[in-house]
Amino acid sequence: MYRKPKHIGIIPDGNRRWAVLNGLNKDGGYEYGLSAGLKLLREAKKAGVEELTYYGFTTDNCKRPKEQVQAFSKACSKAVKLIKNEGVNVYVLGNTRSVCFPKDLLPYTEKKPGDGMKVNILVNYGWEWDMKNGWISRDIPRIDMVVRWGGMCRLSGFLPVQTVYSDFYIIKDLWPDFSEKQFTDALDWYQKQDVTLGG
Amino acid sequence: MYRKPKHIGIIPDGNRRWAVLNGLNKDGGYEYGLSAGLKLLREAKKAGVEELTYYGFTTDNCKRPKEQVQAFSKACSKAVKLIKNEGVNVYVLGNTRSVCFPKDLLPYTEKKPGDGMKVNILVNYGWEWDMKNGWISRDIPRIDMVVRWGGMCRLSGFLPVQTVYSDFYIIKDLWPDFSEKQFTDALDWYQKQDVTLGG
Repeated sequence: MYRKPKHIGIIPDGNRRWAVLNGLNKDGGYEYGLSAGLKLLREAKKAGVEELTYYGFTTDNCKRPKEQVQAFSKACSKAVKLIKNEGVNVYVLGNTRSVCFPKDLLPYTEKKPGDGMKVNILVNYGWEWDMKNGWISRDIPRIDMVVRWGGMCRLSGFLPVQTVYSDFYIIKDLWPDFSEKQFTDALDWYQKQDVTLGG
Repeated sequence: MYRKPKHIGIIPDGNRRWAVLNGLNKDGGYEYGLSAGLKLLREAKKAGVEELTYYGFTTDNCKRPKEQVQAFSKACSKAVKLIKNEGVNVYVLGNTRSVCFPKDLLPYTEKKPGDGMKVNILVNYGWEWDMKNGWISRDIPRIDMVVRWGGMCRLSGFLPVQTVYSDFYIIKDLWPDFSEKQFTDALDWYQKQDVTLGG
């Protein structure tokens, strides 16, 4: 029987390393991650994944140099609009009461019921902010698999409550070097994991 | 410069698989994990690790067949006493108000200040129980690295708040097949991780 993850978390790490490796400034990588995000979304839709949650940027990330903050903030805004065009239910979660939150994303901050695929993007999200607000992220369900690009094997504060039972799949390549095969390999790998939900 | 994890989390998974592979009943593996736990502790002490937290068993695990529950419960009791003899500060954390909690471990359920290495053992721990009690585990500090045996790349509910920034190191071998080299390899690997604490 084919075991499919219903809900996948995506940690698109490695944009800055990719930029430097490709002769750009550190902030030059995010733009290149946009098409990666779209390709992944289409592949997930094709595979019948019901929900995707992208780790956009965090409250911690906002302490970085201004050019970087502007770059990833702008990339997130663009990403949300690109995703919106794919005919999915878009939901943006993060601390809206901060200058770091892109104002043009405010219309997406309510999770609406609806048929079809759900795509959540964490924008100016912080696990401590989430916790202090009584786990405000609780309208996002449990995550079956987390796929992380960029080689690190860690959550970096990504939805601690939803990921308690998640399987983590790590891809060494940097996010802008995304390929569909990386994602389908992750789906194949997931089938072989024995899910017990802590039992 | 040698980067050393101050606090390591240990997920000693694979006892049941090991038992079956070695011609025993599923509940026959836990006893063999005891010496593994001691060897690891001595190795960590030698390396100057300040704090270790072992994932003993969980409230979820207690839903398993009775022989298994009795077997891992007994093994945990033994483990705590063996560890106590190593001259470290032992602390047991878990839901004591349940028949699943071994009564002989009640004297260890208070975290005392003290010099020297700290060793925490989660006994009848549950992340939901932890959360419902306002994160009762908050006297356990942030975990730098989680080392898991048995090949699965997941947390299985292990201290969600302490592990938000942890690096996860996965060992394919099953826990009763522990060797010192696996642990020193984990320490070597940790040195190469770029710790950003979400920044």
